[in-house]
Amino acid sequence: MAGLHVRSLLVTGANRGIGLGLVQHFLRMPNPPQWIFATCRDPKGQRAQELQNLASKHPNIIIISLEVSDPTSIKAAAAKVGEHLGGSGLNLLINNAGIVKLNTLDTETFEDMREIYTTNTVGPLLMGQAFLPLLKKAAQGSPGSELSCSKAAIINMSSIGGSIASSYGWELMQITSYRCSKAALNMLSRCQSLAYKEHGILCVALHPGWVQTDLGSCAGHAVGIALGRVHQSSAADFTAPSQALGMGCISSSAPQPPVTVDDSVQGMLKVLSSLSEKDTGAFLDWEGNVLPW
Amino acid sequence: MAGLHVRSLLVTGANRGIGLGLVQHFLRMPNPPQWIFATCRDPKGQRAQELQNLASKHPNIIIISLEVSDPTSIKAAAAKVGEHLGGSGLNLLINNAGIVKLNTLDTETFEDMREIYTTNTVGPLLMGQAFLPLLKKAAQGSPGSELSCSKAAIINMSSIGGSIASSYGWELMQITSYRCSKAALNMLSRCQSLAYKEHGILCVALHPGWVQTDLGSCAGHAVGIALGRVHQSSAADFTAPSQALGMGCISSSAPQPPVTVDDSVQGMLKVLSSLSEKDTGAFLDWEGNVLPW
Ligand SMILES: NC(=O)c1ccc[n+]([C@@H]2O[C@H](COP(=O)([O-])OP(=O)(O)OC[C@H]3O[C@@H](n4cnc5c(N)ncnc54)[C@H](OP(=O)(O)O)[C@@H]3O)[C@@H](O)[C@H]2O)c1
Ligand SMILES: NC(=O)c1ccc[n+]([C@@H]2O[C@H](COP(=O)([O-])OP(=O)(O)OC[C@H]3O[C@@H](n4cnc5c(N)ncnc54)[C@H](OP(=O)(O)O)[C@@H]3O)[C@@H](O)[C@H]2O)c1
Repeated sequence: MAGLHVRSLLVTGANRGIGLGLVQHFLRMPNPPQWIFATCRDPKGQRAQELQNLASKHPNIIIISLEVSDPTSIKAAAAKVGEHLGGSGLNLLINNAGIVKLNTLDTETFEDMREIYTTNTVGPLLMGQAFLPLLKKAAQGSPGSELSCSKAAIINMSSIGGSIASSYGWELMQITSYRCSKAALNMLSRCQSLAYKEHGILCVALHPGWVQTDLGSCAGHAVGIALGRVHQSSAADFTAPSQALGMGCISSSAPQPPVTVDDSVQGMLKVLSSLSEKDTGAFLDWEGNVLPW
Repeated sequence: MAGLHVRSLLVTGANRGIGLGLVQHFLRMPNPPQWIFATCRDPKGQRAQELQNLASKHPNIIIISLEVSDPTSIKAAAAKVGEHLGGSGLNLLINNAGIVKLNTLDTETFEDMREIYTTNTVGPLLMGQAFLPLLKKAAQGSPGSELSCSKAAIINMSSIGGSIASSYGWELMQITSYRCSKAALNMLSRCQSLAYKEHGILCVALHPGWVQTDLGSCAGHAVGIALGRVHQSSAADFTAPSQALGMGCISSSAPQPPVTVDDSVQGMLKVLSSLSEKDTGAFLDWEGNVLPW
């Protein structure tokens, strides 16, 4: 990543999936960041074991507790990150944490609609507000006026599923609550890009590909049902939060996501390294393609 | 409206603004509907007085209590409408109720983001679910297979503010919570169009123009602030729900919306009368122009 020189970054949902992959790839850079704030909602829990192991070997990883659907937790995390950074700023905020539930339009509920929006859309908005002072500081402390991810940036992990124009994969999975939350996240990215440009902060929405993670496998399960390869009656199981969050979504008869976490993250870092002023507010995929709203 | 023959329709937020205008224009048609379900959240309150007066003169108006952010209220309303209709279906569901708060990106809160999404996006989703059986019935009972608003349709009142591609009016009003909710509503319309097509139901998202209503005047107030014509310090007043919902947003120094309720509604009815199969899933304005997502 010749073009990416990040002194400090923060990733939400860094304990597994794409978030953990991002931490691993930043560590392996020829010029790794001085501070990697790897946040997760349960740092002491089973699901953070791999991240804890990694942090025990890399003192530049700081694990911070962060529940993105809780404004108090977000503010506390911002305060802690500020303390660690002393007087310097935060270059990169990656709003990666996200959830999906395998609902059809018929089975969406009031609660699911609100919960998924809160995590996938409201969280990133509040994160942007809370970390704005640190992002501004990074932008001010960075040479040159051109926007870039090395200077200061917000990356919102969106999804092609949030593309209104493409209705991507509708026949295979309806997941309306997820689609609505990601379309709204795309709008948020656009708003952030317009509001934060004057502060020297670049903002984009990024689709990571269909990736081999718990969430990606959940999607595979939905596809399996649509194709008749997975029994319909097991669908209901996957709307339960604990399972939608990754335990047990992998069924041998369901199609598996084609992209590995490594390939997705490597692609995204290449994209990030290439971004400049003209890209702020864009919706891109892990290969750098512009996606339709 | 030569092309629009609607036996029954339902409008949410029918007590004032565009919703009330829709009821008035349907009444004035050469072939007025047999049933106009004019719903509002407080039928006995001051804000429903004009609608009550109208209903006392027109027995085809049935006023029904409906709070779109409350699933129980939605289900109760659907049951009541079903009773009134006896065995017949509902041709047209107009999800018109909506709210805005004059926030900047900096002043958005957890509560506002969730409240506005719940009313503007979750409400229309639950309405579609609850009235689906009646819409299906209307479609089945209607001759011909071509989709149309005379057969069965869901109209979601969106906004150009929800267009991610255009970022319309950003410099004058940020209203990120509103923009996100309407972008998500556009996604919902698209999902409904895909899911309900097989049932013979047409679905579109409609932008009514910038219209002379309480909500439209609130937007004018924001524009007034941006242009320096209205004093900044009064901005905070307009984030309070009671005021964002219409009391006192009109200030003489703020620009007023250019479109009257009558012109907007007349334009929209002309658009509705022209819609066919090819239009389902579209995002259109009151003059029939296709808007970018
Ligand atoms: N995988 C794909 O194919 C794919 C495709 C398109 C977009 N995406 C997007 O990519 C992002 C990462 O997905 P992934 O595939 O890596 O999913 P994943 O393996 O299921 O991981 C999700 C991560 O988000 C965290 N998280 C969920 N809710 C949270 C909350 N309220 N507060 C804090 N953290 C929370 C989880 O923490 P816990 O361990 O505590 O649950 C976990 O670390 C998501 O935004 C997703 O929508 C993924
Ligand atoms: N006016 C414009 O320039 C403009 C532009 C673009 C889009 N729109 C959209 O057009 C639609 C109508 O707007 P308008 O200009 O007519 O606004 P308005 O004059 O402020 O009227 C809003 C209506 O929605 C109702 N409502 C709000 N929250 C509700 C809830 N939770 N449950 C039930 N009803 C609720 C209000 O009822 P109460 O009287 O009980 O508050 C009122 O009847 C909205 O969706 C708006 O976003 C308007």
